[in-house]
Amino acid sequence: MNSLPSRVFETAVNELAKLPGIGRKTALRMALHLLKSRKEDAEAFGMAIIRMHNDIRYCRECGNISDDELCSICGSPKRDKSIVCVVEDIRDVIAIENTGQFNGVYHVLGGIISPMEGIGPDELNIEGLIEKVNSGSLTEIILALPTTIEGDTTNFYIYKKLHSSAIPVTMIARGISIGDELEHTDEVTLGRSIVNRTPYESIIQKKNQ
Amino acid sequence: MNSLPSRVFETAVNELAKLPGIGRKTALRMALHLLKSRKEDAEAFGMAIIRMHNDIRYCRECGNISDDELCSICGSPKRDKSIVCVVEDIRDVIAIENTGQFNGVYHVLGGIISPMEGIGPDELNIEGLIEKVNSGSLTEIILALPTTIEGDTTNFYIYKKLHSSAIPVTMIARGISIGDELEHTDEVTLGRSIVNRTPYESIIQKKNQ
Repeated sequence: MNSLPSRVFETAVNELAKLPGIGRKTALRMALHLLKSRKEDAEAFGMAIIRMHNDIRYCRECGNISDDELCSICGSPKRDKSIVCVVEDIRDVIAIENTGQFNGVYHVLGGIISPMEGIGPDELNIEGLIEKVNSGSLTEIILALPTTIEGDTTNFYIYKKLHSSAIPVTMIARGISIGDELEHTDEVTLGRSIVNRTPYESIIQKKNQ
Repeated sequence: MNSLPSRVFETAVNELAKLPGIGRKTALRMALHLLKSRKEDAEAFGMAIIRMHNDIRYCRECGNISDDELCSICGSPKRDKSIVCVVEDIRDVIAIENTGQFNGVYHVLGGIISPMEGIGPDELNIEGLIEKVNSGSLTEIILALPTTIEGDTTNFYIYKKLHSSAIPVTMIARGISIGDELEHTDEVTLGRSIVNRTPYESIIQKKNQ
């Protein structure tokens, strides 16, 4: 595609085309939409993105994004702090919260182990999880990672790390189709998979039979 | 979907979800992508959008976006200023430029007549086109509007306005599938449709037979 008639416009199109899943034609349509909208609206849009990096904090307990030191989940007296659900990122927190089936708290890893992308255990918030377990206040760890090879690897790594502690490690039921991403699962299936969570040990035993 | 754990993040997601064709889940993925990217990159993204409204001008000749008073097409000595191609918006300018088949200049209407969306002839840059015609320097007007009912209506409105002048009004060949948008047409088909443009009068006569 040739260059655009305005460098300022070209820059905006290039920036929009960097968004995940957005090609150049879609970026062009978006830039035109923003250019046609009111100046205040385009400014609100731009400032909302810039403000994220300046104002968003991460919950010191679970790693979820937050406006304060503690996120609204960890800060709530209604949540059971002894049950921790381990997830890949905040989209999974949102997805599970939408099911209304979970009353514990979360632990956001910030990714999963992926040798292909050069992500090892040290890049993830796994140490924080072990510290929580060692504090002795937990009654259950629920693994809610994606049903992919990377998710399985991470599940197993965490399980081995926590195996020596007496805390039961469970995994959300594999009602979710293999290969699908957690956030795209319908709420009923995802909710059911939390209710029907299975002890991780019994899954390993079944695999080895 | 429930509210997000951070109001700042929620605002960013809501702004991204206003983009055309972007739902809330995609907006969430985009916001997370921007949050995970470097602060400088997120700032560059936000500023590129804000800058559009401040720095982009519209060519005083054709209405195309531009960094200067004249766009690069109207300002080029190589372009034939006597042939004017009438298009809906700048995406169509870019699409036709990419074919490399047109050496004239453009006239950007800024939309097409659409009673459904409340867009009448007065909302469009049609007066400017008539002024150009009255200046007596044109040899041909090419109508390159979408092949939709709204496009047809706008074609006919412009044709009637210019009918009394002696300037030939042509229309790009209807090799483009009916109902498709100009910008999504492949370059070969779109280029051919410029080369094989047909006198508008002969099309009306064929319709009436």
